[in-house]
Amino acid sequence: MSSELHQAALDYHQGNRPGKLTVSSHKPLETREDLSLAYTPGVAAPVREIAKDASKVDLYTAKANLVAVISDGSAVLGLGNVGPLASKPVMEGKAVLFKKFADIDVFDIEVDTQDVEEFVQTVKNIAPTFGGINLEDISAPRCFEIERRLIAALDIPVFHDDQHGTAIIVAAGLLNALEIQGKDIASAKLVCLGAGSAGIATLNLLCELGLNKNNVLLVDSKGVVATHRPNLSEVKLQYATQSDKKTLADAMKDADIFLGVAAANLVSKAMVKSMADKPIVFALSNPDPEISPTDAHSVRDDLIMATGRSDYPNQVNNVLGFPFIFRGALDAKAKEINIEMKIAAVHALKDLAKLEVPTEVLQAYNADTMSFGKEYIIPKPFDKRLIDVVPKAVFDAAISSGVANIMP
Amino acid sequence: MSSELHQAALDYHQGNRPGKLTVSSHKPLETREDLSLAYTPGVAAPVREIAKDASKVDLYTAKANLVAVISDGSAVLGLGNVGPLASKPVMEGKAVLFKKFADIDVFDIEVDTQDVEEFVQTVKNIAPTFGGINLEDISAPRCFEIERRLIAALDIPVFHDDQHGTAIIVAAGLLNALEIQGKDIASAKLVCLGAGSAGIATLNLLCELGLNKNNVLLVDSKGVVATHRPNLSEVKLQYATQSDKKTLADAMKDADIFLGVAAANLVSKAMVKSMADKPIVFALSNPDPEISPTDAHSVRDDLIMATGRSDYPNQVNNVLGFPFIFRGALDAKAKEINIEMKIAAVHALKDLAKLEVPTEVLQAYNADTMSFGKEYIIPKPFDKRLIDVVPKAVFDAAISSGVANIMP
Repeated sequence: MSSELHQAALDYHQGNRPGKLTVSSHKPLETREDLSLAYTPGVAAPVREIAKDASKVDLYTAKANLVAVISDGSAVLGLGNVGPLASKPVMEGKAVLFKKFADIDVFDIEVDTQDVEEFVQTVKNIAPTFGGINLEDISAPRCFEIERRLIAALDIPVFHDDQHGTAIIVAAGLLNALEIQGKDIASAKLVCLGAGSAGIATLNLLCELGLNKNNVLLVDSKGVVATHRPNLSEVKLQYATQSDKKTLADAMKDADIFLGVAAANLVSKAMVKSMADKPIVFALSNPDPEISPTDAHSVRDDLIMATGRSDYPNQVNNVLGFPFIFRGALDAKAKEINIEMKIAAVHALKDLAKLEVPTEVLQAYNADTMSFGKEYIIPKPFDKRLIDVVPKAVFDAAISSGVANIMP
Repeated sequence: MSSELHQAALDYHQGNRPGKLTVSSHKPLETREDLSLAYTPGVAAPVREIAKDASKVDLYTAKANLVAVISDGSAVLGLGNVGPLASKPVMEGKAVLFKKFADIDVFDIEVDTQDVEEFVQTVKNIAPTFGGINLEDISAPRCFEIERRLIAALDIPVFHDDQHGTAIIVAAGLLNALEIQGKDIASAKLVCLGAGSAGIATLNLLCELGLNKNNVLLVDSKGVVATHRPNLSEVKLQYATQSDKKTLADAMKDADIFLGVAAANLVSKAMVKSMADKPIVFALSNPDPEISPTDAHSVRDDLIMATGRSDYPNQVNNVLGFPFIFRGALDAKAKEINIEMKIAAVHALKDLAKLEVPTEVLQAYNADTMSFGKEYIIPKPFDKRLIDVVPKAVFDAAISSGVANIMP
């Protein structure tokens, strides 16, 4: 980050009032009568109604539109295990994005334990407060067990955005990229660099969408994940290859798709050059990708490339997903966000990218033209159609898959 | 509650948007540049600064002005153990009062365990989120241990409002009532009906202010708490009498002060008649007091009376305390709310009642006149001078007692 941006961001966060979030009442509170309704004695009325019928909590409190963004600070951005206090600006940032893009109220909760058992128990204990739980920036492999146990324990949506949010946006963009390159997901060969939460969740979702597990090479810091390697974790084992490829360079040769969720500058021009015809490179390390678009394009002109950066085409940005996915799930009072709902979000995003881009989006991005193709495979965050199409798709999938809790 | 008020309160809580709270950003979020400061990549700047120096969290996040209102729903209003979900309207109500009266942001957190150990662990684990913790509607005697352990474990203010909030307002009003009646707290005889959180905390605070423990008779559902009674809890034992008085009627005879924190209609006219000259009756059960002001005044014209009700003079209302006490504590970055700060709040409230009442307060209460005396011993919640005098008194006491964490 430039020192100018660093200082501008500090100034923004300090300002006249520290941080970004504020809590207020959306009901009148001016008179003694207002107070007697909002608090004693009137407040006893909704208490009594909810005590008789728990479902009334959605009618008389903010719960049904309230999501917790919860982190232990163990894997914050690319900065690592900075702990709960230092994670707070990110969690507040997530909260304001939920609000801006989908009108969802969020409490950010920073948890002071990195013990899986204690973390799960803590979140379970505060869960009655919320209509949904967004787990954030929790390190792998702990995040897998934490999410699995909370989904099993709670009857509200629990969603680890670093896993599924990323997976959904990548899948939408990748399906479009495959279509443009004229490739079939069932036969495409994919190299995934990085075996953390985003990498594993993306592979899982892509396999649901037709990717063949046998066409996947997973590469971690020790090289290609192969069945002969000792002490592989359960999650890595399911993508372990029986081939004798060892290095990232070995893996990249003749690959159709490179998915980077690792760290800056791990991929060379030679590696991209060795890929199959019409390759697809998703280099998602932030802020600096595994290989820069400039370097990648310099060796391949038949390439489609996506990054996590807003200053290049095809930005994979989680804000395209989580606000709208939760909006649909909350509106359906879904008890979970299941695979059907995730796939519905993928298709909604994928399809939106094929429609004509409205003028307001062009203006927001200072672009003269933008249309479905190699440099526009994913919608833009400021596209106001997102709130129409993605929540509806997720909502409908919740209904048809039987996890909604409203009259259809 | 009348059925009209019941329905009006339900309508208020439902409205166009359920509940009372909403969370929003107080920083601009309109452009791509705003987003790049609020979230990636800019947000990494405050994360890095806080990771280097934890105190910076107060500069770059909402933490320092953010209080958790936390309940397990075990003792909600006069409604009992309704559980966490049904307690939510009350906790949201508390949140909006914090905001309205002292501009403090509040997350309400409803906790799904009534196990003391697990509750304490849960609150400790989420504590990095907050600048202070207001415990609410937790049953006695569990609330005493919970508060004691959290105060010991955390370096932010932890305050059980049902205990100390009530104690502070009662003490302020009572000191003024004693002055008006020409009595000395050191020799006054007090009967406390109710040995729950409010009763015990009020006795503790009054003893700090000069009440003689030997002049106290504590009465619970089994009658006068006396040393010969078996199996007395530790908190009751400290107020157990060696006298042979057994019933509430025995205790009330010749008492100077009655403090009721129990239930409606437990006190008879005859009991009030049997009290000493110029008695003081604080009948605080809500919504219906231990004896109605009409009944009490019908047998004693030398009485000063206070209740929890807004439709009689001398309302003991916790909103006179918690917003302003936390405002002072947060401004001082106090690591606790100690006895010096509580006593400072008592004196600030007591002294404010002696000043001339501003026109705007008279208007808010549709009163032609209001001045220090038997029917005005406590300030009114809509008195805008509260935010000037109470936080400052608490702030100054935090500094002078050495628990503040700012340059004096």
